[in-house]
Amino acid sequence: MSEPTKILLTEDQIPTSWINVLPELPGGALPPLHPGTMQPAGPDDLSALFPPAVIEQEVSSEHEIKIPDAVREALGLWRPTPMYRARALEQAIGTRSRIYYKYEGVSPAGSHKPNSAIAQAYYNQQAGITKLTTETGAGQWGSALSFAGAKFGIDVEIYMVGSSYDQKPYRRSMMQTWGAQVHRSPSDRTEAGKANAGSPTGSLGIAISEAVELAAQRPDTNYSLGSVLNHVLLHQTVIGQETIAQLGIAGETPDVVIAAAGGGSNFAGLAFPWWREKRRHGLSTRFVATEPAACPTLTQGAYGYDFGDASGLTPLLPMYTLGHGFVPPPVHAGGLRYHGMAPLVSALVKAGEVEARAIRQNETFDAALTFARTEGIIPAPESAHAIRTAVIEAEQADAAGEERVILFLLSGHGHFDLAAYDQYLAGDLEDPEFSSAERDRALDELPKGAPAIA
Amino acid sequence: MSEPTKILLTEDQIPTSWINVLPELPGGALPPLHPGTMQPAGPDDLSALFPPAVIEQEVSSEHEIKIPDAVREALGLWRPTPMYRARALEQAIGTRSRIYYKYEGVSPAGSHKPNSAIAQAYYNQQAGITKLTTETGAGQWGSALSFAGAKFGIDVEIYMVGSSYDQKPYRRSMMQTWGAQVHRSPSDRTEAGKANAGSPTGSLGIAISEAVELAAQRPDTNYSLGSVLNHVLLHQTVIGQETIAQLGIAGETPDVVIAAAGGGSNFAGLAFPWWREKRRHGLSTRFVATEPAACPTLTQGAYGYDFGDASGLTPLLPMYTLGHGFVPPPVHAGGLRYHGMAPLVSALVKAGEVEARAIRQNETFDAALTFARTEGIIPAPESAHAIRTAVIEAEQADAAGEERVILFLLSGHGHFDLAAYDQYLAGDLEDPEFSSAERDRALDELPKGAPAIA
Repeated sequence: MSEPTKILLTEDQIPTSWINVLPELPGGALPPLHPGTMQPAGPDDLSALFPPAVIEQEVSSEHEIKIPDAVREALGLWRPTPMYRARALEQAIGTRSRIYYKYEGVSPAGSHKPNSAIAQAYYNQQAGITKLTTETGAGQWGSALSFAGAKFGIDVEIYMVGSSYDQKPYRRSMMQTWGAQVHRSPSDRTEAGKANAGSPTGSLGIAISEAVELAAQRPDTNYSLGSVLNHVLLHQTVIGQETIAQLGIAGETPDVVIAAAGGGSNFAGLAFPWWREKRRHGLSTRFVATEPAACPTLTQGAYGYDFGDASGLTPLLPMYTLGHGFVPPPVHAGGLRYHGMAPLVSALVKAGEVEARAIRQNETFDAALTFARTEGIIPAPESAHAIRTAVIEAEQADAAGEERVILFLLSGHGHFDLAAYDQYLAGDLEDPEFSSAERDRALDELPKGAPAIA
Repeated sequence: MSEPTKILLTEDQIPTSWINVLPELPGGALPPLHPGTMQPAGPDDLSALFPPAVIEQEVSSEHEIKIPDAVREALGLWRPTPMYRARALEQAIGTRSRIYYKYEGVSPAGSHKPNSAIAQAYYNQQAGITKLTTETGAGQWGSALSFAGAKFGIDVEIYMVGSSYDQKPYRRSMMQTWGAQVHRSPSDRTEAGKANAGSPTGSLGIAISEAVELAAQRPDTNYSLGSVLNHVLLHQTVIGQETIAQLGIAGETPDVVIAAAGGGSNFAGLAFPWWREKRRHGLSTRFVATEPAACPTLTQGAYGYDFGDASGLTPLLPMYTLGHGFVPPPVHAGGLRYHGMAPLVSALVKAGEVEARAIRQNETFDAALTFARTEGIIPAPESAHAIRTAVIEAEQADAAGEERVILFLLSGHGHFDLAAYDQYLAGDLEDPEFSSAERDRALDELPKGAPAIA
């Protein structure tokens, strides 16, 4: 038998700490701003929504934060996740480079999202919270939090974007199987929902407003977010730390580290530990965040303060943004259809530490099909962006006569995205273009009182 | 951190041989009979459909058969599969017993089926075959063979039961994503299909006839079957062998080994290696094959010669059967809706080596929900039968003041079965009863020329 295809770790190799890049951020971290006053928002502004431990993590200056034993134990249901050498893919594209991928689709909910859902459910349980509210679009985050709530005995109430609720009944069933209440948003259960009762499809912005409204009103209820914020990215750093151990077993150092970026959490999860490794050990590793050409936040957005939601209720975050009023075309990578980007990822792109690459939808499905037929796993449309970018890196290396060690994140499986594969196979998949005019209009609406960022 | 939840093996621990129980079968093996002559069918009768290596395995008297390196390498994409200690489930049901489960849902197609699909695709490729035909009902086998065909460069043509084709579009999409041609059965591509053009839903029997007809006509095309036959059960024995190593790491010997039985391949995969272990080492392990109360082949069937398909085209097999004309009620465990049972499993049940237990549909979904909310994995409805039986064993042990070591097979995930969970959660799931009158009618139609079995 040839060298192993999978590189596995044992449960005692689940990382013991999360890696916090906040204190090492080039130029220092910029604070979020209160949406009313436009002044820096402090921990008190967040205490109606989040438990103390999470608020602390949001602004922590510690380089490493210990993972509680109960969280590590719950992560042990599926972690450490496998890393694979993509030999069959390498052979199919005829590259001399070596391609490795980390696979997060083995989690119960099928993506990396439970890494933070478990931690957030735990900290809320510790704080005496009995219910969590959240929103979900494509359903990945809602599934993850439903599962985490079941593990820690916390009720979960989910506002699911109306169009997804109608089109993705099985993601909803999955959440209900784990015991969550799922409501179609806009609902008649909140003021925000009633005010938007006329919206036939709903939106992530409305769903966020509904979930936040309920959590703010009830002392036993908190709100939970699945990406963008510092603490969420922090919880995902178990991914990258495991790949450091796994590539170590393979005796390799990556030349390039690739992950898709929507809100930024899966990219951060893989890249941040390697970025620190690069700083500490003088590696020459490059980092590529990859995004849909239809929603090119990093490659076509502005860097400034903008709201996290569409309605302007959340604090303003310092980030790349297409404008909070920008409505991305309906590409199937629902997890990447976000107007903004995590402040930590944005700062690293701004500082030139991370590159960005935008990919067209049909190109990602083409790569996904090649991957499925060689490596066997049917990827989520989000993850397919990372596959395509890995193949591009391999092609560039071959053209330059180089051999690269390429590491990418396969963040989830595509078992709930097969309707999109159907469309692609039938030649019916749209390949929507980005509207720079729509972006310019949205950017014109950026909050005027916020300071510009140099 | 407490003891590990998962027990993992490395790729070099994938078994090197399959375990063949045929030469140890109590009372010896009975031959299949030719459907025309009712005389024992020999290898020649199978050569139009199967490659030589597979036909050899069907009748082999070797106790172990070496797994080809190329097959082991392909299995390495997902094998060895994990084994878990179900601590959270144990806690939820308050048992003193220790429950372990082996999980086959990590395979690309999401069940144990690829274990044989990979082997069959390999042997057919070695024999110069360029196309495989098969039938699929719920879609698990069709998915597995599509994936295996993609790995070994063999075209796969699938006849999918009409009602499933209409109701399970995503299983079809999965097969097409791996490059297979999928036809709704009855089709207009075969004589058998044309003869049954009036059937609105199709049936497994018609789909088998279509696939067999095409394979029999073309020298470059073979037929592939996903359960029942000796060689298919043989290929599944990697499952049980891995659990022998895994329970060894845990320092345990199972008191009872449990798996669901439809055609018999997942049960055999787990149980046969342990059955041999019991014989060689004098273990006191019990074996329980579990089946739907709506299709209780082992608990309510007759033991005799019957056709493998509904139409009477295949050889007659010595097995437990509800009659080839028996149409099971539409329970969601589609993989367990089969009138017969693998001859090897049937013989062991007949000899008293294996017990059988029938479970009602609602009871299995109740167990599945408890399992999903504790262990995190949403099980396939077929696998839920094994979960429920494991819980019953634990309850019985507690009542008797015993601690049992219980091992069961979680043969697949339920990502394509969430419509059934929806119905269960809404209280709309049917709990169909078995019709003994319908069985008696079907048993009256057993082929009359076949010898009775003592």
